[in-house]
Amino acid sequence: MTDPDFDARKARAAAWFRDLRDRITAAFEALEDAPADAMPSHAVAERAPGRFELRETRRDEGRGGGGLMSVMRGGRVFEKVGVNISTVHGTLGARAQAAMAARGVPGMDRDPRFWASGISLVAHMQNPHVPAVHMNTRMFWTPGAWWFGGGADLNPCIEYPIDTDHFHAALQAACDAHAPDYYARFKAWADEYFFIPHRGRARGVGGIFYDDLNTGDWEADFAFTQAVGAAFLPAFLPLVERRRPQPWTEAEREAQLVHRGLYAEYNLVYDRGTKFGLETGHDPDAVLMSLPPLAKWV
Amino acid sequence: MTDPDFDARKARAAAWFRDLRDRITAAFEALEDAPADAMPSHAVAERAPGRFELRETRRDEGRGGGGLMSVMRGGRVFEKVGVNISTVHGTLGARAQAAMAARGVPGMDRDPRFWASGISLVAHMQNPHVPAVHMNTRMFWTPGAWWFGGGADLNPCIEYPIDTDHFHAALQAACDAHAPDYYARFKAWADEYFFIPHRGRARGVGGIFYDDLNTGDWEADFAFTQAVGAAFLPAFLPLVERRRPQPWTEAEREAQLVHRGLYAEYNLVYDRGTKFGLETGHDPDAVLMSLPPLAKWV
Repeated sequence: MTDPDFDARKARAAAWFRDLRDRITAAFEALEDAPADAMPSHAVAERAPGRFELRETRRDEGRGGGGLMSVMRGGRVFEKVGVNISTVHGTLGARAQAAMAARGVPGMDRDPRFWASGISLVAHMQNPHVPAVHMNTRMFWTPGAWWFGGGADLNPCIEYPIDTDHFHAALQAACDAHAPDYYARFKAWADEYFFIPHRGRARGVGGIFYDDLNTGDWEADFAFTQAVGAAFLPAFLPLVERRRPQPWTEAEREAQLVHRGLYAEYNLVYDRGTKFGLETGHDPDAVLMSLPPLAKWV
Repeated sequence: MTDPDFDARKARAAAWFRDLRDRITAAFEALEDAPADAMPSHAVAERAPGRFELRETRRDEGRGGGGLMSVMRGGRVFEKVGVNISTVHGTLGARAQAAMAARGVPGMDRDPRFWASGISLVAHMQNPHVPAVHMNTRMFWTPGAWWFGGGADLNPCIEYPIDTDHFHAALQAACDAHAPDYYARFKAWADEYFFIPHRGRARGVGGIFYDDLNTGDWEADFAFTQAVGAAFLPAFLPLVERRRPQPWTEAEREAQLVHRGLYAEYNLVYDRGTKFGLETGHDPDAVLMSLPPLAKWV
């Protein structure tokens, strides 16, 4: 290979995550601008449309890379939404190196360098009828290997089968265009991955999840990862538009806060991205941006 | 030894944790009964005094033991407080057995039976000037070993050195009566244990923490564990009485909710008791009773 460090490909992947971030933040700000008659008669409708605040993040001293954190808080539609991109590189600590070597990443026992870039998004909504959502895709590189991973899942506190079906159908279309077995495999993986063992239940109504994706064809795997990212807005925006005008009760708001407690439990106890971020010394506010603005444990 | 299974001692320890629970829940309900002039002029003062609700908990099918969960919610002084006792026994799973054997627990490689009893308490207060608090003590038995562990720590969102000093002094008195080095050792252990690495800060203002306590003298170690439990009310009640009448601002309430987010992060990511409880299949509501009634991540 003429580019053993994959520099051109790394740059293309990082640029894609950046571009996807720009599209999503623009679409979310546009949702905030909806006319008042598209909103229920709750106090949130009278607020100024929410806007993203941006902050650059950096890893601990001596470790390479950083990211851009975009957070919108207290909007008319979004109570809190974070869209983070990051591109980091360096040398894995002994523990992470051992874990990767044990997972079978080739060459990891000899050379613990790594590079990773990705986008991560979690949205907590004002209206309990609008589902919370998560999406994340990333590319990982080590001197002996590369792979893609990611997924998206829907987390309604009030479940509407028609919304769940739409979300899954959009992800399925992205999968089907790349390989006939992807959707079934990655849906099953999401069902397993987004499960909360100590509660004996899923955190939401699923979606897709994949990791360690390396078919040997980088272009194809990158194209699939782009397709998953590109499917996110068509999967999610129609649900926001359908549910946004629906008024809600105090009891529904309570159910939303309790459901968010579950989400926080999942993220702090089980989520791989959270563990990786905290253990590799990334900015804790960026890693924990996924945590809900307000959550309740009864 | 005529009682190789320690049955009489196990019964005494379990009875003590039950007795301590009764004393603490009675004292907390008495705090709720304070006259209105001992309360600030907030809406909480007009509520009915809070009372504990009790629920028996049981471990998953086929595993022995259970406990008693006592929770008071939405009181005048306590926003949410849980006082749990449990006495459980059975056979450790392969993973927990390996972890204990690796820690050097004698005989663990051959016979994975265990017995454990303890009390665990976390209080989240209405008034941001009154500190949140945690206390936990327990006895652990295996066929080849026994030990005690526990501690208490103070978690104010607004720090008052006079309160911190009082809390530490009460714990120090309990320690000093048993061994001259206990306080210094166990305070240092708490500083290390109640630290949140990803935030680079302690979760509160410390206290004491100890584990694996086995001096070879069961009576002495049990007496010390009783002393720690008995020191809790004198350490904490005066702080509640001093701060309870103090009015608070919206900004102080916000600071309290954000501080509780830190507490939830700590408990879900690092706490040993939480991990042990979730992994051994104890009732998740009992294990997670420590989580705040309402928490905020900005």
